[in-house]
Amino acid sequence: MSLAALQQEYLPLIETGMRDFLDAQSFGSSTLLKEMLAYHLGWMDGSRGKRIRPLITLLCTGALGAPAKNALPAAISIEFLHNFTLIHDDIEDQSPTRHGRPTVWQKWGQAQAINAGDALFSIAQLAMLDLARTCSKDTAAEAANLLNQTCLHLMRGQYLDMAFESAGEIELETYLEMIEGKTAALLACSAAVAGLIADRKRAINNLSDFGNNLGMAFQIKDDILGIWGNPDLTGKSTASDLHSKKKTLPILYGLKHSTDFRTLWAEDDLSSAQIESMAEILSAGGAKEYAGTLAETYTIRSRQTLTELAHDPAARNDHADALLELSEMLLDREV
Amino acid sequence: MSLAALQQEYLPLIETGMRDFLDAQSFGSSTLLKEMLAYHLGWMDGSRGKRIRPLITLLCTGALGAPAKNALPAAISIEFLHNFTLIHDDIEDQSPTRHGRPTVWQKWGQAQAINAGDALFSIAQLAMLDLARTCSKDTAAEAANLLNQTCLHLMRGQYLDMAFESAGEIELETYLEMIEGKTAALLACSAAVAGLIADRKRAINNLSDFGNNLGMAFQIKDDILGIWGNPDLTGKSTASDLHSKKKTLPILYGLKHSTDFRTLWAEDDLSSAQIESMAEILSAGGAKEYAGTLAETYTIRSRQTLTELAHDPAARNDHADALLELSEMLLDREV
Repeated sequence: MSLAALQQEYLPLIETGMRDFLDAQSFGSSTLLKEMLAYHLGWMDGSRGKRIRPLITLLCTGALGAPAKNALPAAISIEFLHNFTLIHDDIEDQSPTRHGRPTVWQKWGQAQAINAGDALFSIAQLAMLDLARTCSKDTAAEAANLLNQTCLHLMRGQYLDMAFESAGEIELETYLEMIEGKTAALLACSAAVAGLIADRKRAINNLSDFGNNLGMAFQIKDDILGIWGNPDLTGKSTASDLHSKKKTLPILYGLKHSTDFRTLWAEDDLSSAQIESMAEILSAGGAKEYAGTLAETYTIRSRQTLTELAHDPAARNDHADALLELSEMLLDREV
Repeated sequence: MSLAALQQEYLPLIETGMRDFLDAQSFGSSTLLKEMLAYHLGWMDGSRGKRIRPLITLLCTGALGAPAKNALPAAISIEFLHNFTLIHDDIEDQSPTRHGRPTVWQKWGQAQAINAGDALFSIAQLAMLDLARTCSKDTAAEAANLLNQTCLHLMRGQYLDMAFESAGEIELETYLEMIEGKTAALLACSAAVAGLIADRKRAINNLSDFGNNLGMAFQIKDDILGIWGNPDLTGKSTASDLHSKKKTLPILYGLKHSTDFRTLWAEDDLSSAQIESMAEILSAGGAKEYAGTLAETYTIRSRQTLTELAHDPAARNDHADALLELSEMLLDREV
C-alpha cells in the first residue's frame, strides 16, 4: 500500500482511538475539563494537527512485521503527550492562537489551562500503559519508561528555549541540544517505541536514530524557511524570524561570525530594507550554507537508517516505503 | 518499633532516595532546571514538607509483611508527584510563598515554573517505573497505572476547586468530590500501592479506603480549624477562612441553610465583629456539628480499615501500630 492508502487506513484508527480513550476516562463533575481537552484536540470544530507522530509509530511497527494495531495505545499516547506540551507551551509563550483559533489558556484562563495540560499528561501515561492490553505489562512498563525519559528530554529542551530569550551568546551546540529536546526527541520516541512493541529490541537504536535525525533535519529546514522561505508559500512575512528576533540556527551563526549582523541585530525597529540586508549578510557570510549542509547531513542519516530498516528480512516494505515518502514530504517542503 | 523509631529509619531513606534519583537523571546544559527542583524540594536550605505520603507507603508495605525498602521507588515517586502538584498549584493560586520562602514561579517566572513542574511530573513517573528493579516490570506497570488514575483524580479535584471560586451555589456532595480529588486521592494511592508491591492484591481496596478516609477526615478537620481553630496555635487570624472567603465545608453548609449567613457573606469589607458573628451563626445553625460529625465518620472508617489490616496474619504489628499513631497525629491536631 502507498503512504496515502496507509494514511487512509490509520488516521481514522488514531482519531477514534483517541476519542474512545478520552471517553473511557472518568471526569465526574469536571465535565468542562474534558471539554477543554476535546476542544484542544480539535474535536469541537475539526481544527487539529496532522497526527504525524502516531502515524510514524504505526508505520514503524508495521515495517518491523508486527500488527500496527498493537501499537495503537502507544500511538495515541504520543499524540496526547504532544498535545499536552502544546497546551503548556502556549501558556509559556503567551501564544493567543493555534490552528487559527484561541488557545486553551485564552479561552479558560492560565490556571485552568495548566491543570488541563496536566490532565492530558496523565491521560497520555494511561494510554501508553494500555499496551498491557495489546502487548504485555512488561512492554507497557518499558514503553512508559521510554516515554518519560523522552518527556524529561522535552522539558530540558523547553527550558533551554526559554532561557535563550534572555541569554547572551548561545553556542551552536547548545542550540542543537535545544532542538533535539524540543523537536527531535518525541519523533525519536514515536519510532523507537515500535521496537518494543514488535519485540525487536535490536531495532530500537536504529529507529530512534531515524526519528531523531528526521526531527533535527525538519527543525533546521524550518529555521531556513523562517528567513529564506517564499512568503507566497509560507503565508508569513519575508524573513519572519528576523522580524520577530527568533534565535534560530542561521541567526546564531550570523551573531557568532558577523560583526555587521550583530550591529543590526542590536537595533530596535528595523526597516524592511534593513531586514533584507540582514538576510543577505547571513547568506553571504555562510549561515544559509551552514544550516543547509547540516540539514542535509541529518536528512541523509535519517534516510540511511530507513534503508537499513527496509533491508531487515522481516520488514514489510510498503510500510518502510511509506515512512520514506512521509519523511521526504516533511523535509522537501517549501512551507 | 515505635512510629518515632520507624520515622528515624525511613525518613533518611526517603530523602536520600529522592536526591539520588534526581542526581541520576540527565540534565545536559539545563543545570538550572535541576536547581529549581532541588530548591523546591528543600535541598538548598532545608525548608521542606513532612514527607507523610512516602512514609505511609513504606509503613503500609511493612505492615503487609513485605520489605519496606522494596517500596522505596513508589514512595519517592509519590513525594515527587505531590511536589509537582505544589509547583503548579502555587502558579494557579498565585501563591507567593511556601514553607516561608518564595515559590518557584516567584523566583524564576511562571513559564519556567510550569516547565519545572512538568519535569518533576516525568521524574515521578520514572521513579514509579523503577519498581521494575525492586519488584517486577508487571508491578511497575500496575503501580504506574494506579499513579496516573490518581493524577487524573487530582486534576479533576483541582479543576473543581478553581471552578468553585466563580461558581454560584456549590452542592456539599460536589465539595466532597473536590476534596476527595485534591487531598484524599493521593493518600489513598500512597497506601494502596503497597498492596501491589507486597503482592497482596486483596488488601488494595482496604488500603485505599484507609488513605481515602484519612484524607477526607484530615481535610474536613482543616476546614473546621480554618474557622474555629485557636489563633494562638494555628498562627492564623480568628476564622481565617471567613476572612479570605474560602468556600470550605462549614461555610457551604451555612450558605445553604442560613439566610443571615448568606446576607453577611455577600458583603464586602466585613468587620472583625461581623466575622465573629458569622462564625457564631455557623455554630448555632449546625455547620460545626455537621462538619465535626462527618470528620468523625471518616476517622472511624479509617481506623476500622487499619484494624482489619493489623488482624491480617502476615501483618507486622509495629508498622500497623505506627500507621495508627501517624493517623491519630494527623487527625487529633489543633493546628
